[in-house]
Amino acid sequence: MKTKLNAQNVLYPMPTVLVGTHVDGKPNYAPVAHMVIMDFGSISVSINQGHHTNAGIKENRAFSVNIPSVDLVQEVDYCGLVSGKRVAKDQLFEAFYGTLDTAPLIVACPINMACRLTQTVSLPKHDVFIGEIVETYCEQACMTEDELDWSKVQPILFTMAGRRYWHLGAPLAEAWHVGKALQD
Amino acid sequence: MKTKLNAQNVLYPMPTVLVGTHVDGKPNYAPVAHMVIMDFGSISVSINQGHHTNAGIKENRAFSVNIPSVDLVQEVDYCGLVSGKRVAKDQLFEAFYGTLDTAPLIVACPINMACRLTQTVSLPKHDVFIGEIVETYCEQACMTEDELDWSKVQPILFTMAGRRYWHLGAPLAEAWHVGKALQD
Repeated sequence: MKTKLNAQNVLYPMPTVLVGTHVDGKPNYAPVAHMVIMDFGSISVSINQGHHTNAGIKENRAFSVNIPSVDLVQEVDYCGLVSGKRVAKDQLFEAFYGTLDTAPLIVACPINMACRLTQTVSLPKHDVFIGEIVETYCEQACMTEDELDWSKVQPILFTMAGRRYWHLGAPLAEAWHVGKALQD
Repeated sequence: MKTKLNAQNVLYPMPTVLVGTHVDGKPNYAPVAHMVIMDFGSISVSINQGHHTNAGIKENRAFSVNIPSVDLVQEVDYCGLVSGKRVAKDQLFEAFYGTLDTAPLIVACPINMACRLTQTVSLPKHDVFIGEIVETYCEQACMTEDELDWSKVQPILFTMAGRRYWHLGAPLAEAWHVGKALQD
């Protein structure tokens, strides 16, 4: 039995990442769960226009996408509770840099992508920043035989319903394979 | 110790959904994991231009987003293995409709959103369709006290690395709460 939910956007669960940029010359970080692969070379990030991060991305035309593990959930959530307008976040994490010197990459996060802003889609209350991925880094301990191993990354998933973070669960099936049973 | 991965797009895990539209007057479905909340009223879907679905969305300016449970993983994967150009998929699922008569909503999926196409961002190999959510439906059995309960939905997560589907795991922490321990 279906019930109607007033055109709610319920596209979850989504990975929780920390978006980094420089604001006033210093690293700043914001947790974001509304971002996606646009194609295999680019990412979009949707951020409410009220955030401190937006000014930094517009000024520098660069940002980082850092995927934290579950052991960083307190720090991730803290970054969402306090604005960089009032609290400096540059001391929260040790950063390193690739070729983009305003895209701070968080050492403690097992996966890091440095992105160059290519276009911005303006929605009524949100900026959707589209970035070209310039470099990707991964913690070697999160790889198995030269491939990223998500059971080792232990990412943080987010759902708006319940305002909750979740663990990634067990593997379910192989993609482009399990459906073969239904082919004639 | 970090290793460089050649600018790979590793923004996962993502929820796996079935995007529905009409092509040549009949429902067609494609599994998609590259879609996101643009803002609380709209969704973007990135689909390679080679797919049958793209023609239908362009023609009808409407599509559905259906979130399947793990028990549909074979059917979801099958939809990605075969193209609607060669195999009719309209008999795979029973569909219902809201106000958009070319956005087929799958009865067997616990969550359904009907979307009206508002703009298309063209990338070299992908169409990124942006849709306004017109209606959202949810299976009542997946709600707890009038709120969506993701542990009951049992969504299918996808990672490109390992070409794998995953279960959602256990709750980890409360968002906008667990980080308060770090506030002064």
